[in-house]
Amino acid sequence: MKVLVVGANGQIGKHLVSFIQESDSLDARAMIRKQEQASFFENLGAETAVVDLEDDIDAIAKAAEGVDAIVFTAGSGPHTGKDKTIMIDLDGAVKTIEAAKVAGVKRFVMVSSFDTTREAIQSAPESFAPYVAAKHYADEWLKRTDLDYTIVQPGALTNDEGKGQVQAAPRVDRGEVPREDVARVIVAALENEKTIGKQFQVVTGNTPIKEAVASV
Amino acid sequence: MKVLVVGANGQIGKHLVSFIQESDSLDARAMIRKQEQASFFENLGAETAVVDLEDDIDAIAKAAEGVDAIVFTAGSGPHTGKDKTIMIDLDGAVKTIEAAKVAGVKRFVMVSSFDTTREAIQSAPESFAPYVAAKHYADEWLKRTDLDYTIVQPGALTNDEGKGQVQAAPRVDRGEVPREDVARVIVAALENEKTIGKQFQVVTGNTPIKEAVASV
Repeated sequence: MKVLVVGANGQIGKHLVSFIQESDSLDARAMIRKQEQASFFENLGAETAVVDLEDDIDAIAKAAEGVDAIVFTAGSGPHTGKDKTIMIDLDGAVKTIEAAKVAGVKRFVMVSSFDTTREAIQSAPESFAPYVAAKHYADEWLKRTDLDYTIVQPGALTNDEGKGQVQAAPRVDRGEVPREDVARVIVAALENEKTIGKQFQVVTGNTPIKEAVASV
Repeated sequence: MKVLVVGANGQIGKHLVSFIQESDSLDARAMIRKQEQASFFENLGAETAVVDLEDDIDAIAKAAEGVDAIVFTAGSGPHTGKDKTIMIDLDGAVKTIEAAKVAGVKRFVMVSSFDTTREAIQSAPESFAPYVAAKHYADEWLKRTDLDYTIVQPGALTNDEGKGQVQAAPRVDRGEVPREDVARVIVAALENEKTIGKQFQVVTGNTPIKEAVASV
């Protein structure tokens, strides 16, 4: 299974491409914004495609040609300029979803935010609400397609070393989770078709990742 | 027909409430953010409802109780902070649409932007693109409901005196249009059921407004 990783140069993205390359059943194509980001991925034996998420759907669809799945893990982050929030976290995600359709790629894993419900938008601190809203509309857009989607909603991201164990379910208590473990959760989701059509939260926990993901 | 005007205190909104109050068949309820904005509308004989568009759907639905139509003409404007673009132009619009459903209001007139297509997002100047994207997703959300919607897409807004004549069609050449004429177009749309399910651009022109709106 070849997987296009959109946002490969991000912190989760780099872990993810590494784990995909380690997997026997998966191969990565890293979608990156700049050619100078390519060597990291080439050293892992991954393909690269240089596309800016602010380019049009056709450019993204071209990067997705021939892959079996797409992971969207790009993010402007909650603290970048608010114009990027709508252009990357919402519009970049929607363009990637539309590109999946154009390229005929059915499988789509979205890395979302812990809680993207209407209630979460309303209760978010003012500086964070635009980010939650952008992720909300991206998730909504995806759910209204007929793609084979999985929506992964990680807790507060840390750079701690991965523990290999998480708690994953539609609703879990708020908590932290290492980016490395989120990347492993994405791999587990790609490798388990039972996650299709599922949306689940994930925080650090005591269940081995494959098992936790299989139970959602 | 009682009409809730969301964004009543804006420049188009003030014209609109005036024209609604002048009409024999329509009455306005002005949704405003602050109590001190009420006197302008009370002097026109209009009802008022004080609700912030950043409040929740239920607050907006309460303001919409008992009305027959809603006009969304609120806007952060293309040059306000980008966080407001997503929170007002997109999320405020979607919450108003959802509030219409909660309150059982079928008729909905959206004041959109001249061109909210995917192509328009891609070709917009970088500072303007977030606004176009926000309006795009708000329009898309509305079109996917079963509300009796009309989407009005005015050209470049001016404060010139209304001419009473416009050009209106799904696609017209780019041009200016006085806010006063846009307000009259909204009234004409409310008064003409043939505009239900229609989306049209409007610029200044040579056709009397009622006639132009009837032809879209």
